[in-house]
Amino acid sequence: MSLSFGRDLYLTPGPSVMPDSVLAAMMRAAPSIYDGPIVDLTESIVTDLKTIAGTRHQLAMYIANGHGAWEAALENVFAPGEKALVVHTGNFAQSWANVAERMGIEVSYLHFGTDRAADAAVLAETLRADATHGIKGVFCTQTDTASSASNDIPALRAALDAAGHPALLMVDCVASFACERFEMDAWGVDVMLTASQKGLMCPPGIAYVFYNEKAEARARPKPDRAPYWDWTDRANPGLYYQYFFGTTPTHLLYAQREALNLLLAEGMENVFRRHEIFAQAVWAAVEVWGTAGPLRLNVTNRAHRSRAVTAVRAKGVDCFALQKWLRHKTGLTLGKPIGFDTPEFGNGAHAFRIGHMGHMNPPMLLGGLSSLQAGLIACGIAHGAGGVDAAVQVIAANA
Amino acid sequence: MSLSFGRDLYLTPGPSVMPDSVLAAMMRAAPSIYDGPIVDLTESIVTDLKTIAGTRHQLAMYIANGHGAWEAALENVFAPGEKALVVHTGNFAQSWANVAERMGIEVSYLHFGTDRAADAAVLAETLRADATHGIKGVFCTQTDTASSASNDIPALRAALDAAGHPALLMVDCVASFACERFEMDAWGVDVMLTASQKGLMCPPGIAYVFYNEKAEARARPKPDRAPYWDWTDRANPGLYYQYFFGTTPTHLLYAQREALNLLLAEGMENVFRRHEIFAQAVWAAVEVWGTAGPLRLNVTNRAHRSRAVTAVRAKGVDCFALQKWLRHKTGLTLGKPIGFDTPEFGNGAHAFRIGHMGHMNPPMLLGGLSSLQAGLIACGIAHGAGGVDAAVQVIAANA
Amino acid sequence: MSLSFGRDLYLTPGPSVMPDSVLAAMMRAAPSIYDGPIVDLTESIVTDLKTIAGTRHQLAMYIANGHGAWEAALENVFAPGEKALVVHTGNFAQSWANVAERMGIEVSYLHFGTDRAADAAVLAETLRADATHGIKGVFCTQTDTASSASNDIPALRAALDAAGHPALLMVDCVASFACERFEMDAWGVDVMLTASQKGLMCPPGIAYVFYNEKAEARARPKPDRAPYWDWTDRANPGLYYQYFFGTTPTHLLYAQREALNLLLAEGMENVFRRHEIFAQAVWAAVEVWGTAGPLRLNVTNRAHRSRAVTAVRAKGVDCFALQKWLRHKTGLTLGKPIGFDTPEFGNGAHAFRIGHMGHMNPPMLLGGLSSLQAGLIACGIAHGAGGVDAAVQVIAANA
Amino acid sequence: MSLSFGRDLYLTPGPSVMPDSVLAAMMRAAPSIYDGPIVDLTESIVTDLKTIAGTRHQLAMYIANGHGAWEAALENVFAPGEKALVVHTGNFAQSWANVAERMGIEVSYLHFGTDRAADAAVLAETLRADATHGIKGVFCTQTDTASSASNDIPALRAALDAAGHPALLMVDCVASFACERFEMDAWGVDVMLTASQKGLMCPPGIAYVFYNEKAEARARPKPDRAPYWDWTDRANPGLYYQYFFGTTPTHLLYAQREALNLLLAEGMENVFRRHEIFAQAVWAAVEVWGTAGPLRLNVTNRAHRSRAVTAVRAKGVDCFALQKWLRHKTGLTLGKPIGFDTPEFGNGAHAFRIGHMGHMNPPMLLGGLSSLQAGLIACGIAHGAGGVDAAVQVIAANA
Repeated sequence: MSLSFGRDLYLTPGPSVMPDSVLAAMMRAAPSIYDGPIVDLTESIVTDLKTIAGTRHQLAMYIANGHGAWEAALENVFAPGEKALVVHTGNFAQSWANVAERMGIEVSYLHFGTDRAADAAVLAETLRADATHGIKGVFCTQTDTASSASNDIPALRAALDAAGHPALLMVDCVASFACERFEMDAWGVDVMLTASQKGLMCPPGIAYVFYNEKAEARARPKPDRAPYWDWTDRANPGLYYQYFFGTTPTHLLYAQREALNLLLAEGMENVFRRHEIFAQAVWAAVEVWGTAGPLRLNVTNRAHRSRAVTAVRAKGVDCFALQKWLRHKTGLTLGKPIGFDTPEFGNGAHAFRIGHMGHMNPPMLLGGLSSLQAGLIACGIAHGAGGVDAAVQVIAANA
Repeated sequence: MSLSFGRDLYLTPGPSVMPDSVLAAMMRAAPSIYDGPIVDLTESIVTDLKTIAGTRHQLAMYIANGHGAWEAALENVFAPGEKALVVHTGNFAQSWANVAERMGIEVSYLHFGTDRAADAAVLAETLRADATHGIKGVFCTQTDTASSASNDIPALRAALDAAGHPALLMVDCVASFACERFEMDAWGVDVMLTASQKGLMCPPGIAYVFYNEKAEARARPKPDRAPYWDWTDRANPGLYYQYFFGTTPTHLLYAQREALNLLLAEGMENVFRRHEIFAQAVWAAVEVWGTAGPLRLNVTNRAHRSRAVTAVRAKGVDCFALQKWLRHKTGLTLGKPIGFDTPEFGNGAHAFRIGHMGHMNPPMLLGGLSSLQAGLIACGIAHGAGGVDAAVQVIAANA
Repeated sequence: MSLSFGRDLYLTPGPSVMPDSVLAAMMRAAPSIYDGPIVDLTESIVTDLKTIAGTRHQLAMYIANGHGAWEAALENVFAPGEKALVVHTGNFAQSWANVAERMGIEVSYLHFGTDRAADAAVLAETLRADATHGIKGVFCTQTDTASSASNDIPALRAALDAAGHPALLMVDCVASFACERFEMDAWGVDVMLTASQKGLMCPPGIAYVFYNEKAEARARPKPDRAPYWDWTDRANPGLYYQYFFGTTPTHLLYAQREALNLLLAEGMENVFRRHEIFAQAVWAAVEVWGTAGPLRLNVTNRAHRSRAVTAVRAKGVDCFALQKWLRHKTGLTLGKPIGFDTPEFGNGAHAFRIGHMGHMNPPMLLGGLSSLQAGLIACGIAHGAGGVDAAVQVIAANA
Repeated sequence: MSLSFGRDLYLTPGPSVMPDSVLAAMMRAAPSIYDGPIVDLTESIVTDLKTIAGTRHQLAMYIANGHGAWEAALENVFAPGEKALVVHTGNFAQSWANVAERMGIEVSYLHFGTDRAADAAVLAETLRADATHGIKGVFCTQTDTASSASNDIPALRAALDAAGHPALLMVDCVASFACERFEMDAWGVDVMLTASQKGLMCPPGIAYVFYNEKAEARARPKPDRAPYWDWTDRANPGLYYQYFFGTTPTHLLYAQREALNLLLAEGMENVFRRHEIFAQAVWAAVEVWGTAGPLRLNVTNRAHRSRAVTAVRAKGVDCFALQKWLRHKTGLTLGKPIGFDTPEFGNGAHAFRIGHMGHMNPPMLLGGLSSLQAGLIACGIAHGAGGVDAAVQVIAANA
């Protein structure tokens, strides 16, 4: 029988769990979108997002999702035919690159597989080989939402510097923003993009692109940019409507304001530390389960792992059946595997993802892991005993 | 550090977790309270509550809490000086009796302790001794929210019948209604009372008193009853406002209607079975923890236990510290112990309660038990290993 | 055809329009009801309500409606057989008296009709005639919700004083509280009662009874009072649960807290002044309509009129048809007439009420009056031209 | 003093008033965005929007605002250097053309002023003159939100046909959709675009572009289109995520589903008729006000007027002061004038707009007009007496 009558739990890597007060903040009329309180509210969001991003530079906001953010970043920087180098550590780097290719950008790849972070030395070497500095931008994810590999952004920055290469460093923080530390200015990132529905705990619908003066200076000429994506007026609006090039997303902004209030009240250092502990708890459980059966953390090197999402491989296991059982029997939804659609992974059947980002506490996280353990038992999937116990230990030791 | 940033989890025995759609149902204007849709909505609630209660008889609704329901039931039945017999299996039986005593009812007690169900044979014997049939009503809880002992109502009914005693059988189902099976008519219960905030998954504020023709026939004369508590017009209103003797609790009714929709969509048999499984999971965890340390289920006899709440004894343990750790470090709130304020229980410091009623699924329940296990570790409370594993096994075996 | 697709408007005298943020405040989980934030929140509500009531004395809160508040006030003060004098200015005074009579209180009446305030001189005279001081309490409404007559409370107080009579002065402010000025201590009122769903802008479900030391001193002995209604422990709780004698109405308190925030942010002087202006606007419209047709303000003496609700007489008019037209064609619901069920008023068919209390601004009020004027036209009810214009003038002159 | 304490009323031309149930529909967790209920919900929205649009052809949905919809439509149809003809009847036609020009499209204009509909004969003549059929597309608004002029789309279609010109007919229905009749297929419209926040009664954030086979056949080659705007995969998704090219706007879809439920329950014929009546009521009020003072309907020809928004000219009047008074004194917000920033209109100071679209009934509409009349008085703006009376008459005669 189904026991799923209760509040559904989504351990998916976004849209993440939204706090009640974030949803309640949308229970109001739309305001005037030309003046009045919405103006101050919007400005305050810009200010707080820059603080979390560690930047004093520019922020352009879009009514869009992460794909829109990708296109926005590329459209401002690259003309068709210009060259980009993709630091490829998973499916989302590839998807971003796909967008670039469709936009006529000449994309080359540094492939590092889908189970580890990029090797900065390889990047440095590649850039040194680009003696004419034909590569205009290097782009990568901080966390690849699909592989759950996380790159060492300062190391990649150092690689550019070591190679003396002027390319822009562009980072996708969709899966990691407000979960893992990111210091745009201190780390020398030129363009960074993210969205509202993961660490920022809001409904999907707002995309954010941060950029610095160097990016603006090297950007494609403004007249050549698509009007919707042009970042300059959005970042420096003369009139309020220019923030979002037309009608402002009133209710999503109400939600975002409340979510930022919650994050800042917790304190970003606490937020980062909390995600660190939750990631360790997830890893501990999966590693114990893996001692007697096919479950494996996709990213073996601890230093390369995301603190917001964890991809799990399960050779030979029918993970679709597991996920179906969990959803229908317990109310738990795990993340669908992405980028595991090769025969090795049973075309996605032999993997799943656990999201542990955003509005998350021990009852939610451990409730998910415990239910997953119940699913392993019920679906007859071999696993070492004590996985949840190991996660519990991590929580007990760190709370 | 605190990891409690996330949705707080309340495993308290009421007010229980409310479904999002129950809360959202209150997001509307108050209607006309004289006619129109509120009339049909109210009638439909009466109909559905009678179905869940297993009765074709009367339902009086009150703007009140459980204490109000107690007083309502007593006020209709008893004149001052009349006699009631309390089947005492915990603190809430006592509290109800306290109300009765304050109302001038002559109360006698059958004490069965606070860790077991009543013994029907003792009741039968007591009633046989009341040869003059001076006892007008026998009252008890189905589940005592404090002790988590559950009475066998049909057995108590049989005791009355065996004794040939005409006393009314009055049952408090506040903690058990819509969690555990209750068949008012089939079981021969004359008066039953409950409230909105536990198995009925609503905010507190509505109390329900069901009664049958026998109760009405033996009730105190209508003119002697306090107007607010008089049940006849509420159960048989000529005008709409009589349902609640004045202004109707509009928003609580909206909430109750939605909660009933959810329960009936799940099906009451499923609801009862789900509570049975969750109770077994909780018992399994506590029993394992108790194999090496002081934790004990308060009610040792499995047949005497509630399926909605579980009281746990913890000799020598500072449970206040444990609860504080859980709340502040993880966001989990357990139920405060009630009725354990004796030296044996450290004046309440050596016990706690786990609510597992209402809107509850495996991620919530196991999330709570896992967090509790983390708390046992963090607070240095001795416990057998594998408690959560045992609960997980129950879920896996029954879902 | 119906044009009612839009936000329904209720110009009923309660439950009044609730602000969005009041409803949104209920979008959260129930808290622990033994300790934590709910304790401070409850205390803050007590403090703020006392401020609005102009008293430093006691406040007992009940899960109940206005009828419950009546019974609570009476139960604490009067034993059966004791004498009360009712200052009767409308249906709600009568309803309160009905409750008193059912409780065995010996009620005598001073009838002032249903279209005017009480005459304090008559009260003084009556009290002087009670040489033995047999009358224990005098009770009246500040505003009678049915007749919309408002009494001059200081004048009634002065009548008691002039007569040198020790009776308690007990006032029902259900329809007027937080709409019209009330100064409990300065005016010498001993008991005052109100409820959450009118000027306090909350869903129905909480009743409030304020009382002073004199009332406590003369009150019925505590052991004789019904436990639910006994006010002493509620006003002076040793444990949190005593505030509401059992489970606290969590979500209604969340709503009440937010509503108080809004009222205090506006400032009570502004609140009172706003109601004064809105009342004048309503009177102006009705008086103009009445220049050529049957519509009349029920209370002719301006000084005797409520600022929160206005009863309108309409000799010979089918007001049921008018109200039906308004509701179905425009989405406006007016207040059903109460206390006009005599042949003179077509058994309620020849009257209606306009509520103008609480969360109300010119678009709402004038939208209601304009729609009403449309209804007069559509239903063929004779009326003088320019009613809405007159109301508009009042707003223009005072805003 | 301010009387604005109450529910703010926004008679702005979008974001329009949102029904409570539309907002409440967002009070839930985000679902899985790969499968499950969101898939059916999304498909049902597509189906219902096509029904309202009168088309059996294609619908592409975007996370975007109206500016995004403009860019989407243009990006799919036009390559840089291709020619568009703009039928210019107000500021929004100009804004759309601005976007086209920034995209490198060669735009020519047919200017019809900002106070009337386009003349189809002029369009026919112009197209006949384009003997080489160099014009790829003709675009116009159904209603210009700024001027409140509405075009006769079938007449414009007839002009294309009469000229035997193959250009695509592209129509912006942002301000009119779900307010005024639109029959895409019957009227021979090739591309139509709209957005969620006006007649569709939702928060801003979703843009809709409908297109037919002819548009697809003549569209720019797919590889040349910007990936985010490419409409083919969105209209014909192989995988769910392609509906919105990435993360789906979960909560806005919940809102849109509920809003469509409400509209379809009312019936679109009723919706259109209701907007017709409300427009007539607004016109009647303004025309009466204009009999003695400077207020004038911007569009003098009744047949050319929008049924969703009305622009009002007020020569010499300080409309900023009027709007400020209304907002601060009454809680009414009118629409800021757009496209009146010429000396003739005091650079926008001598005009305002009244939105009367979407979730609107007589109390709201008349409440706004009455408050506006109060503002005219308070601000000393000359006006004929009886404006609101005239609007009331329209409602009375048609409801």
